[in-house]
Amino acid sequence: MEMKIGVIKGDGIGPEIVDEAIKVLDQTAKVYGHSISYTQLLMGGASIDVNGVPLTEETLQLAKDSDAVLMGSIGGDAKTSPWYQLEPSKRPEAGLLQLRKGLNLFANLRPAVLYDELKGACPLKKEIADRGFDLMIMRELTGGLYFGKRSTEEIDGVLTAKDELTYNENEIRRIAKRGFDIAMKRNKKVTSVDKANVLDSSRLWRKVVEEVAKDYPEVTLEHMLVDNCAMQLVKDPAQFDVVLTENMFGDILSDEASMVTGSIGMLASASLNDTKFGLYEPSGGSAPDIAGKGIANPIATILSAAMMLRFSFDLDKEADAIENAVAAVLKDGYRTIDIMSEGKEQIGTAQMGDKICEYI
Amino acid sequence: MEMKIGVIKGDGIGPEIVDEAIKVLDQTAKVYGHSISYTQLLMGGASIDVNGVPLTEETLQLAKDSDAVLMGSIGGDAKTSPWYQLEPSKRPEAGLLQLRKGLNLFANLRPAVLYDELKGACPLKKEIADRGFDLMIMRELTGGLYFGKRSTEEIDGVLTAKDELTYNENEIRRIAKRGFDIAMKRNKKVTSVDKANVLDSSRLWRKVVEEVAKDYPEVTLEHMLVDNCAMQLVKDPAQFDVVLTENMFGDILSDEASMVTGSIGMLASASLNDTKFGLYEPSGGSAPDIAGKGIANPIATILSAAMMLRFSFDLDKEADAIENAVAAVLKDGYRTIDIMSEGKEQIGTAQMGDKICEYI
Ligand SMILES: CC(C)[C@H](C(=O)O)[C@@H](O)C(=O)O
Ligand SMILES: CC(C)[C@H](C(=O)O)[C@@H](O)C(=O)O
Repeated sequence: MEMKIGVIKGDGIGPEIVDEAIKVLDQTAKVYGHSISYTQLLMGGASIDVNGVPLTEETLQLAKDSDAVLMGSIGGDAKTSPWYQLEPSKRPEAGLLQLRKGLNLFANLRPAVLYDELKGACPLKKEIADRGFDLMIMRELTGGLYFGKRSTEEIDGVLTAKDELTYNENEIRRIAKRGFDIAMKRNKKVTSVDKANVLDSSRLWRKVVEEVAKDYPEVTLEHMLVDNCAMQLVKDPAQFDVVLTENMFGDILSDEASMVTGSIGMLASASLNDTKFGLYEPSGGSAPDIAGKGIANPIATILSAAMMLRFSFDLDKEADAIENAVAAVLKDGYRTIDIMSEGKEQIGTAQMGDKICEYI
Repeated sequence: MEMKIGVIKGDGIGPEIVDEAIKVLDQTAKVYGHSISYTQLLMGGASIDVNGVPLTEETLQLAKDSDAVLMGSIGGDAKTSPWYQLEPSKRPEAGLLQLRKGLNLFANLRPAVLYDELKGACPLKKEIADRGFDLMIMRELTGGLYFGKRSTEEIDGVLTAKDELTYNENEIRRIAKRGFDIAMKRNKKVTSVDKANVLDSSRLWRKVVEEVAKDYPEVTLEHMLVDNCAMQLVKDPAQFDVVLTENMFGDILSDEASMVTGSIGMLASASLNDTKFGLYEPSGGSAPDIAGKGIANPIATILSAAMMLRFSFDLDKEADAIENAVAAVLKDGYRTIDIMSEGKEQIGTAQMGDKICEYI
């Protein structure tokens, strides 16, 4: 297969971790007889430095022309970086929001998996960690509060700010379908999270999710209030399979879930539209404090590349090969510093990429 | 002192746990020479059963006429209770929102404390639990998304729901001041939580909080994004002193924090306006599944009564007496079932109230 992949190395540790993912992709292509071409795209801080804005029309077009985009991480240290002297709409993160909207990436998949080998890193106590967990957050990514109308104005001399949270039934239906589709390939359980005891948007959410559920009689659906879900993720993460939720709740809960695994450096993510196209990136941030030191964990990005092969190119065998290689390297005891524990061997970013390639 | 206390026993375990708090209040009044009169108020499900609505004008007026209100818990099992056949605006929880607004209770204090004696119940691993934590969430309670305009309408044949998130600078200033005031009595650190990289309301929030901070040069202020805060509460809750945030973020984060302690049955809360008046209630819910069994933990409600004496009546000595009595009973090894562990003595709701009274 011929693959045209857009690459956004991004900021902070982005370039280092993306390089390792490309190394692993190239090795996979070689072994399985595919050919990949890469187009480098500038986004976020790196784009501000060159173009003055975090995302140009041209970059957006180049992304659209790719079959899929692999991304590192966006943004810098908000306290010290000059990017954060700019007004909010011109900062690195604004580019990310524009990219999501511009590519219509409404379905954000964020797995939170507790790896057997890494249970020691889990912040939960042994009784809970020993039960293990493997959940998938399906976050709506182009609607709700993050894309509503906003304004700040003086009303009778008093500064007043407003953000609108809007969802229509079509937006809810398409993400709900995605949630149920993925549940069918997993443990057939969907937990839909909302705040239906207060919000109109949540009541519509719940109604539409129930309609969609009728087409998936094999899937068990439960509704959970967002405040309760924030508790349950700590108390008993093993209860979840697919967590289906709107943009902001998904932002908060997916970060909480990733921390509950204790190994964010292992967590991939995919953002999809209604074609085969997708944007793939690690769940963690740009970690400017350790950028350039060669110690960042590239596994999340490597697993994001595996998700890309699976979702955008239907290359399940190749995706499995990468995931199995990661598991094997962990089993052999190799660790980057963020997941290091006693008796294991600590290695750097590039070495981790090399080790994973050996198993492909 | 003469105290006029409104009492909302509420639903589920509410009546049982409130009875024990009243027992402890009466004992405290006897020992310290105060007199308390109680007015029973119907709210939530209990009010629906009698009045058809979760809160009547008359009850609201009676609450206003009290010096303070002590509340159990509101609501029932959403799957089975007839209350949830009613439309959302007529359900038990709607009464709670009306009460908060009607009494202008904009400042909600939710402590999350890991008791030394109860570290075993904490879902976090030993290394983290051993550091202990004692944080106070200051949640804005009458603004934001939960009180904004909402609508559900058909636009071009498509059902569209909207909720508005509005804050003005006055609303932010008064809650921020409360946050800094309480930090001055604690460890002098405020973590203000927002989503200023996306929301206009969060940007105004951050601006006003920074202005208020200038009047409190001794307090250290830090800003944290809500998604990051959801992670930090699991990773390192010891870093927090006062967490200052808006209504919905506070809802989610306070529930998460309460679960991180592992003993919700111990957590009090206070909702205050700009007078001495306050509404005091346990953080946990109405737990309909264990209602009437005499096993619910009354300590959260008893500690809420202590908060009432402290905040609404300036009776610090009396509040200390209750808090010390709770600590002593835990030390003696008495536990309700929710906080039970090996080698301790399990007792019921009423016995727990009695034991605490013995120490007053
Ligand atoms: C950077 C920010 C706009 C973004 C979001 O909130 O969506 C990030 O937190 C994420 O979760 O991908
Ligand atoms: C019952 C509900 C409206 C309420 C809220 O969200 O404020 C509850 O969850 C709480 O936190 O007190």
